[in-house]
Amino acid sequence: MTGTLFLIPTLLNYDAPENIPQAVTDIINSTENYVVENEKSARHFLKIAGIKKSFDSLNFQVLDEHTTPENISELLKPLFEGKDIGLLSEAGLPAVADPGSDLVLLAHDRNITVKPVGGMSSILMALMASGLNGQQFTFHGYLPKEQERRISKIKMLEQQLMKDHYTQIFIETPYRNSHLLKDILKECKPETLLCIAASITGKDEMIKTKSISEWKKSVPDIHKVPAVFLLGR
Amino acid sequence: MTGTLFLIPTLLNYDAPENIPQAVTDIINSTENYVVENEKSARHFLKIAGIKKSFDSLNFQVLDEHTTPENISELLKPLFEGKDIGLLSEAGLPAVADPGSDLVLLAHDRNITVKPVGGMSSILMALMASGLNGQQFTFHGYLPKEQERRISKIKMLEQQLMKDHYTQIFIETPYRNSHLLKDILKECKPETLLCIAASITGKDEMIKTKSISEWKKSVPDIHKVPAVFLLGR
Repeated sequence: MTGTLFLIPTLLNYDAPENIPQAVTDIINSTENYVVENEKSARHFLKIAGIKKSFDSLNFQVLDEHTTPENISELLKPLFEGKDIGLLSEAGLPAVADPGSDLVLLAHDRNITVKPVGGMSSILMALMASGLNGQQFTFHGYLPKEQERRISKIKMLEQQLMKDHYTQIFIETPYRNSHLLKDILKECKPETLLCIAASITGKDEMIKTKSISEWKKSVPDIHKVPAVFLLGR
Repeated sequence: MTGTLFLIPTLLNYDAPENIPQAVTDIINSTENYVVENEKSARHFLKIAGIKKSFDSLNFQVLDEHTTPENISELLKPLFEGKDIGLLSEAGLPAVADPGSDLVLLAHDRNITVKPVGGMSSILMALMASGLNGQQFTFHGYLPKEQERRISKIKMLEQQLMKDHYTQIFIETPYRNSHLLKDILKECKPETLLCIAASITGKDEMIKTKSISEWKKSVPDIHKVPAVFLLGR
């Protein structure tokens, strides 16, 4: 009998442990094997999520952007010894805008049971709080770093929005937020709606949807603040 | 001082209350005004989420597909009397593949603070458990009911997938699942990957990703079972 691969949501903000459901605490107290994006933050999360086991009894393996396809197969090994594995990313849901999907796909191929646990996703929290179309939407991940390509991507997203009304969602490395915001405000039509969802569940949470022309009147400082951007109409 | 509009996740399956985080219990115990998709299931949810207030002290207003734009403005009234409102849909996150976004957008327009609470989304739980691309994806909501249009939509989604590798996610009214699945298996390329995520968090949960040719060898019975469908490669 093989083990189960549990996909465990962490938090967007480790100061808000009231967002961890009991289901997570139950699973981590019966799981000794973890595949994690970052070991230090995984230990921190497990602690605040109420793990009762000693850390010496736990086995951590790292899966990040440096993990090769050959290594991924190795990571699944405990499952074939009948042990469960918990997959954890640094923030939010594993395998969504984070590493992990290759491991999950391989698990399906090997006939392993994959069990997702519900929890916080900054993408969907931003979407529900935006007031923009939640019936159809596209998540694009990070926009291009290079300005010319970024601008052409922003224009493409706005055209797509005008065409089919799908909410267009994207993120940026926090220290490049200001550049991205500047480009959005410059390139988009005045009546296009922009939601900025910054520091979700943090003390300085700021989630606002306004037209581009309204945002231009007072540009928020979101430098280095984790944020999700959404375009709608 | 105006009240806050809290967006409160419910459950996908009311038999699994261990998925409700303390944050939800805290908010419902300090909120007396609710805008809900369905009053009966909202009461049921509040009960299992640990509400301590008597139901007589609560005020429920319904927001569903029959609510007119004029009514929506009325629903916000308690906020201007300084009272908080909790928005609840029948399952999962409000305003995502469910009513609510018009209310949230109006709240932004009226300068109301909107606060999303993290919780279960069948769409993202299916995505993380699928092993398919979680860096870029599109959610299409319901596919067309009429078969010819449904088939042309399925073909379009597969073409889009081949072009840019975005995971294509969609849902169907449970009693039409079998028709949809039949069309997917008939129309898609044998090597295209299909994830079926059925009855998420339910006792009969079934989440599997296989190629179309593998699925054809043994077609699961998902008639009347809530399911999310994902195409990937």
